[in-house]
Amino acid sequence: MTIFASDNVTPACPEVMEAVVAANTGDAVAYGDDELSLRLGRTFSDVFEKNVAVYPVASGTASNALALAALTPPYGKIFCHALSHINTDECCAPEFFTGGAKLVPLQSGDGKIVPDALATAMSAAGSVHNAQPACVSIAQACETGTVYRLEEIARIAELSHAQGLALHMDGARFANALVTLGVSPAEMTWKAGVDVLSFGATKNGCLAAEAIVFFDPERAKTLPFLRKRAGQLLSKMRFVSAQLEAYLSDDLWLKNARHANAMAKRLSDGLARLPDVALAYPVQSNEIFAHLPRAMIDRLTVAGFQVSEEELDGTAPPRLVTAWNTDPAEVDRLLSILEDA
Amino acid sequence: MTIFASDNVTPACPEVMEAVVAANTGDAVAYGDDELSLRLGRTFSDVFEKNVAVYPVASGTASNALALAALTPPYGKIFCHALSHINTDECCAPEFFTGGAKLVPLQSGDGKIVPDALATAMSAAGSVHNAQPACVSIAQACETGTVYRLEEIARIAELSHAQGLALHMDGARFANALVTLGVSPAEMTWKAGVDVLSFGATKNGCLAAEAIVFFDPERAKTLPFLRKRAGQLLSKMRFVSAQLEAYLSDDLWLKNARHANAMAKRLSDGLARLPDVALAYPVQSNEIFAHLPRAMIDRLTVAGFQVSEEELDGTAPPRLVTAWNTDPAEVDRLLSILEDA
Amino acid sequence: MTIFASDNVTPACPEVMEAVVAANTGDAVAYGDDELSLRLGRTFSDVFEKNVAVYPVASGTASNALALAALTPPYGKIFCHALSHINTDECCAPEFFTGGAKLVPLQSGDGKIVPDALATAMSAAGSVHNAQPACVSIAQACETGTVYRLEEIARIAELSHAQGLALHMDGARFANALVTLGVSPAEMTWKAGVDVLSFGATKNGCLAAEAIVFFDPERAKTLPFLRKRAGQLLSKMRFVSAQLEAYLSDDLWLKNARHANAMAKRLSDGLARLPDVALAYPVQSNEIFAHLPRAMIDRLTVAGFQVSEEELDGTAPPRLVTAWNTDPAEVDRLLSILEDA
Amino acid sequence: MTIFASDNVTPACPEVMEAVVAANTGDAVAYGDDELSLRLGRTFSDVFEKNVAVYPVASGTASNALALAALTPPYGKIFCHALSHINTDECCAPEFFTGGAKLVPLQSGDGKIVPDALATAMSAAGSVHNAQPACVSIAQACETGTVYRLEEIARIAELSHAQGLALHMDGARFANALVTLGVSPAEMTWKAGVDVLSFGATKNGCLAAEAIVFFDPERAKTLPFLRKRAGQLLSKMRFVSAQLEAYLSDDLWLKNARHANAMAKRLSDGLARLPDVALAYPVQSNEIFAHLPRAMIDRLTVAGFQVSEEELDGTAPPRLVTAWNTDPAEVDRLLSILEDA
Repeated sequence: MTIFASDNVTPACPEVMEAVVAANTGDAVAYGDDELSLRLGRTFSDVFEKNVAVYPVASGTASNALALAALTPPYGKIFCHALSHINTDECCAPEFFTGGAKLVPLQSGDGKIVPDALATAMSAAGSVHNAQPACVSIAQACETGTVYRLEEIARIAELSHAQGLALHMDGARFANALVTLGVSPAEMTWKAGVDVLSFGATKNGCLAAEAIVFFDPERAKTLPFLRKRAGQLLSKMRFVSAQLEAYLSDDLWLKNARHANAMAKRLSDGLARLPDVALAYPVQSNEIFAHLPRAMIDRLTVAGFQVSEEELDGTAPPRLVTAWNTDPAEVDRLLSILEDA
Repeated sequence: MTIFASDNVTPACPEVMEAVVAANTGDAVAYGDDELSLRLGRTFSDVFEKNVAVYPVASGTASNALALAALTPPYGKIFCHALSHINTDECCAPEFFTGGAKLVPLQSGDGKIVPDALATAMSAAGSVHNAQPACVSIAQACETGTVYRLEEIARIAELSHAQGLALHMDGARFANALVTLGVSPAEMTWKAGVDVLSFGATKNGCLAAEAIVFFDPERAKTLPFLRKRAGQLLSKMRFVSAQLEAYLSDDLWLKNARHANAMAKRLSDGLARLPDVALAYPVQSNEIFAHLPRAMIDRLTVAGFQVSEEELDGTAPPRLVTAWNTDPAEVDRLLSILEDA
Repeated sequence: MTIFASDNVTPACPEVMEAVVAANTGDAVAYGDDELSLRLGRTFSDVFEKNVAVYPVASGTASNALALAALTPPYGKIFCHALSHINTDECCAPEFFTGGAKLVPLQSGDGKIVPDALATAMSAAGSVHNAQPACVSIAQACETGTVYRLEEIARIAELSHAQGLALHMDGARFANALVTLGVSPAEMTWKAGVDVLSFGATKNGCLAAEAIVFFDPERAKTLPFLRKRAGQLLSKMRFVSAQLEAYLSDDLWLKNARHANAMAKRLSDGLARLPDVALAYPVQSNEIFAHLPRAMIDRLTVAGFQVSEEELDGTAPPRLVTAWNTDPAEVDRLLSILEDA
Repeated sequence: MTIFASDNVTPACPEVMEAVVAANTGDAVAYGDDELSLRLGRTFSDVFEKNVAVYPVASGTASNALALAALTPPYGKIFCHALSHINTDECCAPEFFTGGAKLVPLQSGDGKIVPDALATAMSAAGSVHNAQPACVSIAQACETGTVYRLEEIARIAELSHAQGLALHMDGARFANALVTLGVSPAEMTWKAGVDVLSFGATKNGCLAAEAIVFFDPERAKTLPFLRKRAGQLLSKMRFVSAQLEAYLSDDLWLKNARHANAMAKRLSDGLARLPDVALAYPVQSNEIFAHLPRAMIDRLTVAGFQVSEEELDGTAPPRLVTAWNTDPAEVDRLLSILEDA
């Protein structure tokens, strides 16, 4: 079976696995004080062209929820898109980690927050009776596969900062968005006004490696304690750090993302040519949402392909996701089956 | 100054205050084990024609949040209207008391949950990644001043129960809705499918007295502990119980609500006759939302009237609220000022 | 029946009830923006000879838990006596309001924290693996009825502040301790190093009135939101403020406390003279813990007296509490019954 | 440098690492629905001779805190030893995951809970004012390196169950205790009355693999949601499951533990022979606490050995821990240095 349902189904890429194996030699200080982990701050600071504070964790949900908890009081409001992962797919993790903050879901057609809607939502606040606006969270790429342009990020950051709110970026598919825009990590984050990034690596070639990146280390003061009490400070941290180091070396992460995106383009271009198929959103990273007739889905299933039918809020059309390891031959085979249907 | 901004500005009505004074004689067992408090269960059971479990608390926010906490796991979803008090005006109290549950805001024009929208929202759930549907909360009367008809409540209850969800009613203005419908307390609650009621009395003539009413006492097992750890188990509970007993005696609560509603009708009828004024919602209880020209608002302010301009989500038109003590002469004076404007 | 089990059984004293009745005239702005509430800050600032920030709430549990929540991160340690009310009698309210902080119970014979034990406990900390020392909480008077001397408070404050910890005082029986020491409110609090006080009034003559007092208003920034989301911002706040104003007027609070303490002395002096009775702690306020033979307790019960047998951690001897309204004739009657036994 | 400070410093053992590498082939369903993860339940059920429910997580802190959260309401009491890891080394994780439950620390000389002390502590409860006894947590092996005998576990289970409390076992060093006792996993857990086990594997040869084991799967109903919202449901779960499967295969876990324990015996026997050294606790697993003169510690440091000086509550003597990979030659070298000192 070839699984197009998610990029979480992929194995780790060889370079990352080799790094994990290589890290498995002799004793090393625990809880992130090993050599590999200690040099991770330097690595990320180089990649982002800025002195950053980095906190590896084991899952994307934890990465998002911890980042938000560092930015939001328990009576705070987090503005996000209604279809965002933090709102729909994390089983109240943001509410849990923040101690009960409120996610304010904003609507829009393509999964991206619309600045005007954000401005209106933020203005509706002030008194002690209301939850207090605390931060804005955008996903790059979005859950719908769309990607914010730099000026869109900058506009949202401007609105947020004008009200004293921090801007968080859920970067579960950060690399995919980055290669789409063809800009630098710095440009897509702090130069555009992002304050904290949940940097994803698992979907794009790692085993289990995510990192919370604070562009202003001062904001990170509570993070070490929040991370420990969440059970996200792994004792043998070297094995996470090794993944992240390999991932960021020799442009491996960008290479993986370029392949995934190229496969998504190949697939979506093919789908767009089919008479009975309609793409739900512009395809700008490695996710495709497409309205497929039931008969087509059944044909795919019979042929050994798996797509996802319950993504986003359960009302979205089927999702197909490509990844660092997607075989173009399988993309073509899928398309030819649909063409036959 | 006459305040039409809220019904929270009113004093307690004489009968209630007399009961508080009368309760102030000699020692009485603390924490709700006094005679007055012990007979409160009987009183409520009589009013609701059913054996209910009753838990008095000091504020409406606590009443709502504790009721929801008894019905919702920390990873649960609470479906409510986007304009509901629990969503907009309680500074994350429901999230706090439930340990981080998620309020899912539903939209509609008049403040009432639309069954179809609820059905769609509830269906979008299921896997471990999603917060789990746990309960539905409706306000009767709504924050907009509208009132659910019995069959609307029953339909929402039916949808909720079919999915295993409990139905909570925020009854901050329960009496006002009740006299509007002209039905019995039983008919408007458990007979229509309501599982737990936050019974409000403060706005309609008490000093500070609210009660959580469980129509199935089995559901209330955790409530005593949740209430205590929330600092809502008052030591001298007799003073709260005395208010509630007086409030429910001799139809005082209904008399007060009828007067408030009649004043709202008198006021809204007058407003509706004015050329530049438009009512935002049907006036069905004691709240009026009316689009008033700025000049009119200014004239009212000069004349010593206070209305509320920041209710609901901050985007709603000005609010005028009548109460048990509203003077019809003041209503008429307000209208005549507007007519002159 | 005369209840010596608690001071929570008492009615409100006449002056306080009169103030509540007097506050019940006409409309008043809600949520603490009424005139009575607005002048409360001035009243407390005068009493404490310092510009303080004051937040009335409905219960002592809420007062303690909110004060601690303003001082403690969710990964913080609160050092307290093992027998303290916050540790034994508030059903996890401090843990709830702080979002999961840890109470570190310190042992000692008489209910007061011993500075050396505190110093040792505070030193055992530091790394990310440990909950972080955040504040120290003392009760004045203590749950055992003992009272800290000024130099004891100052020593604990010195130790706390040296480690960057704040000092909280649970003043459920603040007035009783104050008249025992014969010092000023300022001397027993901020002049001795107390940062935040939970000022109790309910037990000593009010219906339900407690206040959180911040001696540095800067520390109180989160309190308005924490209080609102806890359902402790009462809408008709004037009725709480009226109690507190009357309580602090004309030395009413001190007069009430002096009477309660005098009755405790009369009672404990009598008990000390009895051959089979032993006082468990020095009697320094209005609480007495006494080892009484079972036969004596039974005799008291038959004679219509109620004492408390399950106080503190459930292992302490029976408790007798006097109050502002204790009748000396009843004290004498109780003693004569025991003498006869 | 040879690190005797902890068993968290060790690499993964070869068999485990090979299993991880072997799991890295092709796509696999995410979030624990892959083949490797699905057969984990069978594997654990075989090992424990009972149908169990198993939930892998990434850290021991998460394993303990989630297990406790499944057993404890937010107003619950968790009885544990004062020196237990959950009380001293998890930065309020149990309080966080349970929503604010209270850990009740019990004292004893050797790190094991004493049944009589537990019985006394449990009896001190009952009313709504108290946190409610919910569960008991023991560590096997204890933080001090001591090991409960089967009859001790059974006695604690009996006391717990008699009061309706569940028994949790923190098995961070489960294998070490098991080989010490020479009993079966079933005998040391459910046959002795343990309800839920936090099964540790990381310290004894894995990279990052812990599992929560419910001996009554009915108790685990909330766990999937609690785990997800805690960010502990890893997307590529196969890599955790692969570790656990290898760990439990061919008695690898027991072999590793036997070696670690044997090294601890070799080391502690040597220490016991030294005139200026005193063992703080009986050495029954792979941890040694020894009072060492400062000069000896300095000599070890110079010679490249690292011991831990801040374990337990910060007041304990230095700790030396052996592991699956401890080199006996290094043990002997350490001892000879001390003998020379």
